Amino acid sequence: MNELTAKKDPLSGAAAMFARYRRDDAPKPPQWNETLDLILRHRSYRAFLRQKLPEGALETIVAAAQSASTSSNLQVWSVVAVEDQERKNRLAELAGGQQHVRDCALFLVWLSALARLDRLAERQGREAKALSYLELFLTGVADAALAAQNAVTALESLGLGCCYIGAMRNHPEAVAKELNLPPHVFAVFGMVVGVPDPAVATDVKPRLGQGAVLHREQYQWGEAQLDAIETLDAKFKDFQREQGLPEQGWIRQVLSRVRGPEAMSGRDRLKEALAALGVGLK
Amino acid sequence: MNELTAKKDPLSGAAAMFARYRRDDAPKPPQWNETLDLILRHRSYRAFLRQKLPEGALETIVAAAQSASTSSNLQVWSVVAVEDQERKNRLAELAGGQQHVRDCALFLVWLSALARLDRLAERQGREAKALSYLELFLTGVADAALAAQNAVTALESLGLGCCYIGAMRNHPEAVAKELNLPPHVFAVFGMVVGVPDPAVATDVKPRLGQGAVLHREQYQWGEAQLDAIETLDAKFKDFQREQGLPEQGWIRQVLSRVRGPEAMSGRDRLKEALAALGVGLK
Repeated sequence: MNELTAKKDPLSGAAAMFARYRRDDAPKPPQWNETLDLILRHRSYRAFLRQKLPEGALETIVAAAQSASTSSNLQVWSVVAVEDQERKNRLAELAGGQQHVRDCALFLVWLSALARLDRLAERQGREAKALSYLELFLTGVADAALAAQNAVTALESLGLGCCYIGAMRNHPEAVAKELNLPPHVFAVFGMVVGVPDPAVATDVKPRLGQGAVLHREQYQWGEAQLDAIETLDAKFKDFQREQGLPEQGWIRQVLSRVRGPEAMSGRDRLKEALAALGVGLK
Repeated sequence: MNELTAKKDPLSGAAAMFARYRRDDAPKPPQWNETLDLILRHRSYRAFLRQKLPEGALETIVAAAQSASTSSNLQVWSVVAVEDQERKNRLAELAGGQQHVRDCALFLVWLSALARLDRLAERQGREAKALSYLELFLTGVADAALAAQNAVTALESLGLGCCYIGAMRNHPEAVAKELNLPPHVFAVFGMVVGVPDPAVATDVKPRLGQGAVLHREQYQWGEAQLDAIETLDAKFKDFQREQGLPEQGWIRQVLSRVRGPEAMSGRDRLKEALAALGVGLK
């Protein structure tokens, strides 16, 4: 690691919380530490230096991922580490032409991988009927996500940066073919990883106030949610303007993403694609 | 925080890696830090002291959760914080009678919460047809999982411990009723949180060697996977014996969990339950 990947000076807890929410009523941490500082300051990186990862970084990131909880100890995920430039280029095309998939030092594809248990059952002459149920589909997605998020924290602690690539679900069958995935295995999402380019600075993206996401005892839809939503809508416009992006509120942005199948970049056919890959949703 | 919640002395990177894999070929980290140490030493806690969380801890944990990436900035998750003893008791029953759900200081229920966007669209007189697709079901599960895993790392950095409770999916409709969930919202998993009881010591659970989960360029099913599986099977027997648990290999344990619907504690009807809760899987 060189000075480009050195850690930033830690913020105070109050400053980190304000940056995340841009609200005066942001939480007051009971104590502050290096790990909280790292997590609160997370942002997605899409601009990287042309520099490889240090030796052992990938394996350390994967060890962190494997240290996450896994439902019933099933460990039904895997990850493919892509470094070959031609393969990154092809995966970039399948992800709608995202340049950072080409440019990153390492492209990780996080898989729901029920095939391991399927094959083990077959070798032992036992049944594994649960694998074709929606419950195991959910387990595969959740296990891969818990693992990937630990990987994010670990790689950021090493001075690296990343961004999730949901567009790995735009063309699931073509991605499966490129990565030689067996039946019962599919890409949940990708992740570009690299040494962040310090010349491309962006800020922490503001989030909904806790009134929208943290409920006491029971779920509530009321003034606190509406206040959080309307406040974020305005703060998000500020954020967009500051970053030189089109000035747009949060509400307009998210509603345009969920308006219908025509806005889903092909993911409206995910169910059909998963069926073709042998993923059960019983 | 008192001395019971004080951080443990950090291990060396090599020692933490060996504890996780129990293999001499465990990864060699390029550098070691407090955050990696915390992540690698994760274990689930089910025994807690009868002690409340420090003021501000819950909100700090949720701020960490909200700092995780969220697909297309949709923020389609919420969390219900349950502290009421009667409600914890009822949720414990719905989770197959798990005592730690009763005993924990805080029970978090992580929700996929598409309802927020649904209501926003309705208020603005716009369509939100994408919300009924499998893609958005996956997004809700993944978003909740990324958030929850950041919460785990954050709460462990504060000296607290936790355990995921997948059994929140045993009776989804009854859980939804208890938590007053609106349509399009369901519990992905629960999480018991508290101050770990230092009198109940357990070790880090060993995981599959990286030969099983880390693939280079393309997915491989070969000797490396088989070696990782067979080695874990033996190491897991050692672990069970050391913890005073029934001596059982990993293969036998996991295959018994996936043998069929009769082993799924009611989760074989998840699809039906989600349909009843208005969750689309189109």
